Amino acid sequence: MSAGWFRRRFLPGGPLPEPQPAGPRSSPVPYHRPRFLRGSGSSPGAPDASRRPDSRPVRSPARGRTLPWNAGYAEIINAEKSEFNEDQAACGKLCIRRCEFGIEEDQEWLTVCPEEFLTGHYWALFDGHGGPAAAILAANTLHSCLRRQLEAVVEGMMASQPPMHLSGRCVCSSDPQFVEEKGIRAEDLVIGALESAFQECDDVIGRELEASGQVGGCTALVAVSLQGKLYVANAGDSRAILVRRDEIRVLSSEFTPETERQRIQQLAFIYPELLADEFTRLEFPRRLKGDDVGQKVLFRDHHMNGWSYKQVEKSDLKYPLIHGQGRQARLLGTLAVSRGLGDHQLTVLDTNIQLKPFLLAIPQVTVLDVDQLALQEDVVVMATDGLWDVLSNEQVAQLVRSFLTRNREDPHRFSELAKMLIHSTQGKDGAAGEGQVSYDDISVFVIPLHNQGQGSCGH
Amino acid sequence: MSAGWFRRRFLPGGPLPEPQPAGPRSSPVPYHRPRFLRGSGSSPGAPDASRRPDSRPVRSPARGRTLPWNAGYAEIINAEKSEFNEDQAACGKLCIRRCEFGIEEDQEWLTVCPEEFLTGHYWALFDGHGGPAAAILAANTLHSCLRRQLEAVVEGMMASQPPMHLSGRCVCSSDPQFVEEKGIRAEDLVIGALESAFQECDDVIGRELEASGQVGGCTALVAVSLQGKLYVANAGDSRAILVRRDEIRVLSSEFTPETERQRIQQLAFIYPELLADEFTRLEFPRRLKGDDVGQKVLFRDHHMNGWSYKQVEKSDLKYPLIHGQGRQARLLGTLAVSRGLGDHQLTVLDTNIQLKPFLLAIPQVTVLDVDQLALQEDVVVMATDGLWDVLSNEQVAQLVRSFLTRNREDPHRFSELAKMLIHSTQGKDGAAGEGQVSYDDISVFVIPLHNQGQGSCGH
Repeated sequence: MSAGWFRRRFLPGGPLPEPQPAGPRSSPVPYHRPRFLRGSGSSPGAPDASRRPDSRPVRSPARGRTLPWNAGYAEIINAEKSEFNEDQAACGKLCIRRCEFGIEEDQEWLTVCPEEFLTGHYWALFDGHGGPAAAILAANTLHSCLRRQLEAVVEGMMASQPPMHLSGRCVCSSDPQFVEEKGIRAEDLVIGALESAFQECDDVIGRELEASGQVGGCTALVAVSLQGKLYVANAGDSRAILVRRDEIRVLSSEFTPETERQRIQQLAFIYPELLADEFTRLEFPRRLKGDDVGQKVLFRDHHMNGWSYKQVEKSDLKYPLIHGQGRQARLLGTLAVSRGLGDHQLTVLDTNIQLKPFLLAIPQVTVLDVDQLALQEDVVVMATDGLWDVLSNEQVAQLVRSFLTRNREDPHRFSELAKMLIHSTQGKDGAAGEGQVSYDDISVFVIPLHNQGQGSCGH
Repeated sequence: MSAGWFRRRFLPGGPLPEPQPAGPRSSPVPYHRPRFLRGSGSSPGAPDASRRPDSRPVRSPARGRTLPWNAGYAEIINAEKSEFNEDQAACGKLCIRRCEFGIEEDQEWLTVCPEEFLTGHYWALFDGHGGPAAAILAANTLHSCLRRQLEAVVEGMMASQPPMHLSGRCVCSSDPQFVEEKGIRAEDLVIGALESAFQECDDVIGRELEASGQVGGCTALVAVSLQGKLYVANAGDSRAILVRRDEIRVLSSEFTPETERQRIQQLAFIYPELLADEFTRLEFPRRLKGDDVGQKVLFRDHHMNGWSYKQVEKSDLKYPLIHGQGRQARLLGTLAVSRGLGDHQLTVLDTNIQLKPFLLAIPQVTVLDVDQLALQEDVVVMATDGLWDVLSNEQVAQLVRSFLTRNREDPHRFSELAKMLIHSTQGKDGAAGEGQVSYDDISVFVIPLHNQGQGSCGH
């Protein structure tokens, strides 16, 4: 990304972007469910036309199909909010090869890897909006981007401290000392690779959507195991937690217009053109009305964590840049998340106001040192927001612990647990409070940490 | 601050700022030590010309002078790094009056307050650079800005939940519900007032420095007690910690080019003009040399928490936006802090490249619920960076606990403790490790929390 890119891309009056050659329009991304659901019982090509909201099927992999680390998976489609299930999932083995300079890659991920240098595993959930296309593209693409980014730095990952120069040629004898002073560790290269992979995947999705004339975006939550560590990268409002016998550890934060208010208001402060005089960047407890003009009301601006009062002017009556509360909070009245992939063409209804400048594709990455955990029956639960809207971390942990205690021997228990968690959001088992029913798409991975190395995708 | 302000102020080619009427140049801010040091033994008007680095005097208030809450204070001037002590301090009683609309204020802070509505206390440390002027202006001004900002919202602070409208006129019957949903509490108004007060004080300092032809900047660390809570606001690299019998709680974070790397790189990404082609925004473990060109070296950009490798181009050889490590880290090769007051005219040596666009005047505010603490011999230690460069939080806590245990009865013990902490940085008492001697200006407040309400400034 070159400096000045931002303005060229988003601001009126700047130099126009290079015209793209108008090739033939490619065909739309076909809808499908994750490959590892093949043979699991219902038609993968289309939603079940006969389903009713109270009888939506919960799907999980066929019993003969083992996911990496014997992870469990289950999903449910929303209650007719959209025609398709906008969630997608992917998992598999990551085979990282050592790259020789100048040698082109031609090998496919998820195939046998005779030249593999380092292997890991990968689990990912994508929660789509505005159509299923972006989530499908992300599920098809992100692991390849990640493999490419990891292969570009894998030599540096093999030492506990990466070398200053990847080729190994030391220009300055004190190079290791500088790396030491900066505290750069091998895991920082994996974090960097995840950040770059999300960005690369977002670029790919942008090109693919444009070429096929489709629209949409998605969140992305990814867990990657490598060299004894589990990396959790999140862009959006899905969530991963570690459930231990006597501890819950939150492995991701949600990125929504509310949690990223200051970053978003800051951008609107620096570039007011992005709001096209249609929105106000200020936050008020509610949308203001004509009667409020002249009064002093609570507000906050981009630099404030606290609140203050301001005298209302007419321009404060515009629609707020971020509006609504909790689940209802929206960016530019349109979007409920502030990070994710896609949405390159998304504009506010009936305007040319773009959402993309306010969105980040970059994930936040947390690292769990699996080798250092005294493993009990530790599991990582990853799920899209539909689960967490209805169940708290504590409720999920409670369900996990009591289920695993009752089902120590069943080899399919993690898949059963994933299904059980989804059933608990449907107002049947009573784990969620009265009336707490989720009508959203929900996808859940349950990853047992003591099964490291067991099972792999594709067989 | 109007939208677009940033570009008008800092970018070439934008519309010029309104010309200011060229009044007569005001006289320079006179140098002085804090008022509460009057009568403490050495000449307050000028540094002691006869001092040697190994015999710098540690100063604290005269024995008859009690600071708010019987707080202790001590300071030491640097080892001839600068002619003046660039640290400044202030403390006093905060008298907040209820403001009637349209009535002009004329009362001075720190005087008797017959109409006071709410009272609190205030302790502040300012660590100057580039001359003592900004720190003196901040010590003279910030409390007035804070009083003004608090008075503007004090009516809203009297309820546990501030009203949507300050005048009390409810436009919409569900207003309280919106305030509730946003979770806005009285303390958020104090946080907002602190944020606005720092910003206002920065504006005042900018005008005063310009009018008097002086330069300089300072960090600001402020503690304010109000309604049973202690608010700690920090912009810069000073630090406050709470020392309890069996716990240390850190009450502030440091803001330096290293801790705010991503914010600073992000701005340079959006506005490359700010670097005038003289600097690179990318971070490398060390400054690159000609021999590095063409090689792949470790780097990170604004969106990265992790590290990656990039092939070095000639433009990467420019001086880095943020360079150096730890104490040596500098913004644009010039400044060791990334937040604070002043520095409005500061440019990179021999260039027109401004520092101010990268600096924030806004503090981070933490709230300590003093009423909820089971008070033992709890004290808050606030000090400029010279102390923390040499003593760790744990070492300070150890010194505090053992000193207070040995000196239970001395009414001046908190002042003696502040002096002792400074002596511990001078390589005599051995609390800091071998060779760990601070040559910097150091100022320390020790605020005992169980003395709430005892003592006040000005007598």
